[in-house]
Amino acid sequence: MQVETTGTVADEGKMIEWFDDLALGMRFKSGEFSVTKSDILRFAAEFDPQPYHLDEVAAEKTVFKGLAASGWHTAAISMRLCVETRPFGPHPLLGLGVDNLRWMMPVRPGDVLHVEGEVVELIPSRTKPQGVAKVKWTAYNQRDEAVYTFTPITTLARRPNPSA
Amino acid sequence: MQVETTGTVADEGKMIEWFDDLALGMRFKSGEFSVTKSDILRFAAEFDPQPYHLDEVAAEKTVFKGLAASGWHTAAISMRLCVETRPFGPHPLLGLGVDNLRWMMPVRPGDVLHVEGEVVELIPSRTKPQGVAKVKWTAYNQRDEAVYTFTPITTLARRPNPSA
Repeated sequence: MQVETTGTVADEGKMIEWFDDLALGMRFKSGEFSVTKSDILRFAAEFDPQPYHLDEVAAEKTVFKGLAASGWHTAAISMRLCVETRPFGPHPLLGLGVDNLRWMMPVRPGDVLHVEGEVVELIPSRTKPQGVAKVKWTAYNQRDEAVYTFTPITTLARRPNPSA
Repeated sequence: MQVETTGTVADEGKMIEWFDDLALGMRFKSGEFSVTKSDILRFAAEFDPQPYHLDEVAAEKTVFKGLAASGWHTAAISMRLCVETRPFGPHPLLGLGVDNLRWMMPVRPGDVLHVEGEVVELIPSRTKPQGVAKVKWTAYNQRDEAVYTFTPITTLARRPNPSA
């Protein structure tokens, strides 16, 4: 496992911390993560023991035509890249669920992934000092092919009002 | 990690193998999986390094009020339980994506999870000898509280026609 943390917020200089700091169209980009064969085999043995994730020879005869990471492994790696990007600054990523989770391409041993995010929906709560932020994240490989996308539904606190 | 494989197809005696063998409302039930504290910490360190998944003391001060598994860990455990249930008999679970992924309750150290599935949508392809099967899976803890649900969009081959 190798992680390079070079996450940047596209709107340089803007300190994002609260729901109120987000704007539609705001973009994020993570560092890179190299996926190894041993990582793929280990994750598959624990969580998704199917031939195309577990066994190079057996995988050749499947629709993947070779070893591919479990989609849930790609999802977990992408979560790590999102966390490191810190789209909400010091605040955690607290997900209620996910919309539009899709796997578009197999992830292979040696692939180098990064994620890019875009704020696509902002829904302030009517009753609580918080909002729901939806960021559409897409994971790309080293050939800039989109391999995976998901849109977590995340809650984030509003900026405290000092006069309140 | 402890896995008990006692998965059963509710329609006892029916051998499910092809898209044509599935019917709306057909149900599946998995064996059980015990979630340990060390599993939670290990997964979080690798994929979701946030305080409420990583550190018992820090977690007390968060919205979870105690250590909770990463939602992606719950997702990965649930995938394992689904695979062991073999809803499509000898055929693999090949997902294009997931609809309606939601985390309803935290998963704690010592929780014992199982999943139950129900066939909710069957869409035969117009051009290929296959179909899309959607099974809504829900993970329950040892108190029968629903902690997680997801509906994978899976392709499955149709029964070969020997006269074709």
